Amino acid sequence: MEQPVSFTEEEEALVIKSWNSMKSNSGEWALKFFLKVFEIAPSAQKMFSFLQDSNVPLEQNAKLKGHAKSVFVMACEAAVQLRKTGKVVVKDSTLKKLGSVHLKNGVVDEHFDVVKYALLETIKEATGEMWSPEMKAAWSVAYEHLVAAIKTHMI
Amino acid sequence: MEQPVSFTEEEEALVIKSWNSMKSNSGEWALKFFLKVFEIAPSAQKMFSFLQDSNVPLEQNAKLKGHAKSVFVMACEAAVQLRKTGKVVVKDSTLKKLGSVHLKNGVVDEHFDVVKYALLETIKEATGEMWSPEMKAAWSVAYEHLVAAIKTHMI
Repeated sequence: MEQPVSFTEEEEALVIKSWNSMKSNSGEWALKFFLKVFEIAPSAQKMFSFLQDSNVPLEQNAKLKGHAKSVFVMACEAAVQLRKTGKVVVKDSTLKKLGSVHLKNGVVDEHFDVVKYALLETIKEATGEMWSPEMKAAWSVAYEHLVAAIKTHMI
Repeated sequence: MEQPVSFTEEEEALVIKSWNSMKSNSGEWALKFFLKVFEIAPSAQKMFSFLQDSNVPLEQNAKLKGHAKSVFVMACEAAVQLRKTGKVVVKDSTLKKLGSVHLKNGVVDEHFDVVKYALLETIKEATGEMWSPEMKAAWSVAYEHLVAAIKTHMI
């Protein structure tokens, strides 16, 4: 079962404001987000089939760019719509697939932690002077809702 | 079997120089190192028995401070002595214990990655203007030797 969504108007406003400032460059920030994940945890590259047998540097890998953008946009859009819809807006079939892929790859809590850290660092860089402890907390809450929804399907 | 140690004189000099600048404050840097690990991967706290059922904030936890210092000093001393001794200077009994504790706690490559990232960030902060890409590379090589030695006993 998904946990009830607790997300205040203030949190929603901070997430929307920051997403509006990032979305025109979402591909660029998405790639930075994934490069940050791999800077912290290079071993996690082995979980991505399209990074195997590739001689292209990470930052030039077209498949990584595409994958990063879809993950980043999904996470941000789910955060933006969290209060309005009262739930994590990711298609059920996608959530099921995310659950099984994460389970199959042996993802543990610390993997979600590292992705959260990298996501928050990326949004911090992207939002510049707009960034604040409250904005960090809002994104943190939204991310934890997304993780909880994925974990529901890691069975 | 441990892998043969490859560590140049230049790498050794960089590690010694930076350790000399940190060791009088090793307790302080050790705690920062562990706080960085938990900032990136808070879930990893569950692996440390002395953090369970504790209401003290992490930065005031005396057991964490003691543990952090022993880990930090062990890792740095092993790096400093790596070239001279041609091996990772950690007592065999300690390495065996480290191997079994890491195995029991379900430590995977990404855990070692996060600890490496936090260690390098800490040394970067501690060494200030002395820090360089070459110094980072030297510590990185030394750390990987330590991890390889621990992994030898994760069986």
